[in-house]
Amino acid sequence: MKVFIAGIDGYLGWALAQYLTARGHEVAGMDRFLRRQWVEEVGSYSAIPVYSMEERLLAFRQRYGTPLNFREGDLLDYEFIRGFLADFQPDAIVHLGEVPSAPYSMIDQAHAAFTQQNNVVGSLNVLWAMKEVCPDAHLVKLGTMGEYGTPNIDIPEGFFEIEYRGRKDVLPFPRQANSFYHLTKVHDSNNTVFACKTWGLAATDIMQGVVFGTQIDEMGDDPRLLSRLDFDQCFGTAINRFACQAVIGHPLTLYGAGGQTRGFLPMRDSMQCLTLAIENPPAPGEYRVFNQFEECYTIEALAYKVREAAEAVGLETEIYHYDNPRTESDHHYYNPDRQHLIDLGYQPTHDVVAEVRIMLQDLLPHKERIYAKYDILVPDIRWNGGRHRSHRIDEAVPSA
Amino acid sequence: MKVFIAGIDGYLGWALAQYLTARGHEVAGMDRFLRRQWVEEVGSYSAIPVYSMEERLLAFRQRYGTPLNFREGDLLDYEFIRGFLADFQPDAIVHLGEVPSAPYSMIDQAHAAFTQQNNVVGSLNVLWAMKEVCPDAHLVKLGTMGEYGTPNIDIPEGFFEIEYRGRKDVLPFPRQANSFYHLTKVHDSNNTVFACKTWGLAATDIMQGVVFGTQIDEMGDDPRLLSRLDFDQCFGTAINRFACQAVIGHPLTLYGAGGQTRGFLPMRDSMQCLTLAIENPPAPGEYRVFNQFEECYTIEALAYKVREAAEAVGLETEIYHYDNPRTESDHHYYNPDRQHLIDLGYQPTHDVVAEVRIMLQDLLPHKERIYAKYDILVPDIRWNGGRHRSHRIDEAVPSA
Repeated sequence: MKVFIAGIDGYLGWALAQYLTARGHEVAGMDRFLRRQWVEEVGSYSAIPVYSMEERLLAFRQRYGTPLNFREGDLLDYEFIRGFLADFQPDAIVHLGEVPSAPYSMIDQAHAAFTQQNNVVGSLNVLWAMKEVCPDAHLVKLGTMGEYGTPNIDIPEGFFEIEYRGRKDVLPFPRQANSFYHLTKVHDSNNTVFACKTWGLAATDIMQGVVFGTQIDEMGDDPRLLSRLDFDQCFGTAINRFACQAVIGHPLTLYGAGGQTRGFLPMRDSMQCLTLAIENPPAPGEYRVFNQFEECYTIEALAYKVREAAEAVGLETEIYHYDNPRTESDHHYYNPDRQHLIDLGYQPTHDVVAEVRIMLQDLLPHKERIYAKYDILVPDIRWNGGRHRSHRIDEAVPSA
Repeated sequence: MKVFIAGIDGYLGWALAQYLTARGHEVAGMDRFLRRQWVEEVGSYSAIPVYSMEERLLAFRQRYGTPLNFREGDLLDYEFIRGFLADFQPDAIVHLGEVPSAPYSMIDQAHAAFTQQNNVVGSLNVLWAMKEVCPDAHLVKLGTMGEYGTPNIDIPEGFFEIEYRGRKDVLPFPRQANSFYHLTKVHDSNNTVFACKTWGLAATDIMQGVVFGTQIDEMGDDPRLLSRLDFDQCFGTAINRFACQAVIGHPLTLYGAGGQTRGFLPMRDSMQCLTLAIENPPAPGEYRVFNQFEECYTIEALAYKVREAAEAVGLETEIYHYDNPRTESDHHYYNPDRQHLIDLGYQPTHDVVAEVRIMLQDLLPHKERIYAKYDILVPDIRWNGGRHRSHRIDEAVPSA
């Protein structure tokens, strides 16, 4: 199949380009390299060195024996995305080209406005371009499990049947996002539902959990083929951040009680799931939602798993609680479905500790790089719009 | 109370400024006059001549004995809105400063992107400015009943208690908007819920029905104090459009079967309701939703009411069905609540025919102006992104 990837230079995009090519798909993609700028803006860099796109493309060609069809450009430039899609005529479009950070969107008005405009208008442009030049393509849109928030009832996959005052309907499940970034994903989902209904586009909206991991097997030993791995407060997600902290002996930073429960999955599961969606497209006009994660864990439970993996490679790790810079509940009910991907054949990787051991081995050679950023590992971007670094709190931490 | 109106030059904004001032409130407001440009862009103008803001301000001062605190500017200019709110320190902010047209948002990619960016980022800027310079003010945000779409169950006011798989929660009622414009109102609602929860702002989110009418009593006989009244396919809402068509003997343009049911209210009821919201603010941190309409009618039933009023003033009127340029269902269940405003004392004006008679009398002196636009009264902006003028369809039209 011909697969177009928006955001192909990113954490998932670069891995997916390789995973799909190795499976025989023809891949094209775009990026404007904004992620590289944003991480630099917040004072950090990828723990694993990221090569220039020229070097990446050369390595890609050497390893996979085929060039990667890449163009630099911005989804906000409608003529660019429309022209590229018209030329490539993809079967599937995987849209990973958005600002992916909640804290980044909460820094101030300018960052909130940028995040909302960039994500909402960029995705809207993808929908319009599909309608105009490739209406039969299948959009695989990256949303987030964070769209749902933490309701006190089970979370179905996108829609549910409700009985209310004696009548029934199947309706979108209510969204309760908890940052201006997460809200962009809700806005995108709503726009996409409408585009499918009105224009007959086909879309899979992926409510993805938090991804962790440094590699997929396809990358091999060529450092130019590795994905980036961020660990700063904005672009480093929970387990990735913990793994980097463990490598340099920084305490693992739990926010609040650490009882926040979320869905997680290793990068290799994300690749497997996205590919299942691509290879099993919905019908024309169909909008479907996949909840995509391996399993739900509390943040605290994951910290213990990281500590266990760290001990296995000889690293001593402490776990600290910090006052939570976010406004969120740290103990709550959480029970989302994830049946659609299982039905398509998803085989979850259940061994988080084994995956984290691989991560630690990949990260240990970059210990000095990470250590140089020791001072920024405790968050200071607060949901109230202020900036001050969290302090350790006296939350009793039971032994594992 | 000190009330700030964003979009004070618009159809509702100009009326509200007068209604509130006449009741003794202190009003300030902003506008960038974009509505005037948009209506011109789609080839039309207001049926009732609109005076320049300089002339409006002079008439305002003459009639109400106090100057109107007005500044020209754009909600996308964050320093402008932040500065004005910081200076004025309002008790309430009524946000009417958005693109208000579904067809305008469906013209093409550029209009869809403009509408979403303008409305979403503009509203986001209002929220940030409130947080930064007047966190105790009460936001009265104009949404639309169109956010809910037409579910097959009753529509509560914003939230409902659900029982699902044996557990209960109170959740936002699902939104199913049917144009890129209506979707902006959903996005705004979601952003506002989050801002209230996270920053403790207070907001009333008004899910307003379709407003009609040419005047409120406060305007008196001074033509400079009248509101605009649009009748083109983009900015003319159903009854306003029908009234202008009746005045020039153009058939009333029903889209499809005309069985679409919506909530409607006269402009004088809109003023009454907005003022009830302003004068009865929610608690700090509270986000509440008011469904705001006088009654629900099918579009066809309203066409008959317009015909009845037209006959009473000696105008013969035909009602035609046209192929529907929108993708929407023209027969559906529709039963929204509207109890919150009734509880606050809202007295609905039930006589639509009497209100339309007033409209016709106000519009008849401008018959020539309206007649000059005879050729654009049948819509040509289609939900599939194309442009072609609807044709009359052979839908049996029962006599009234």
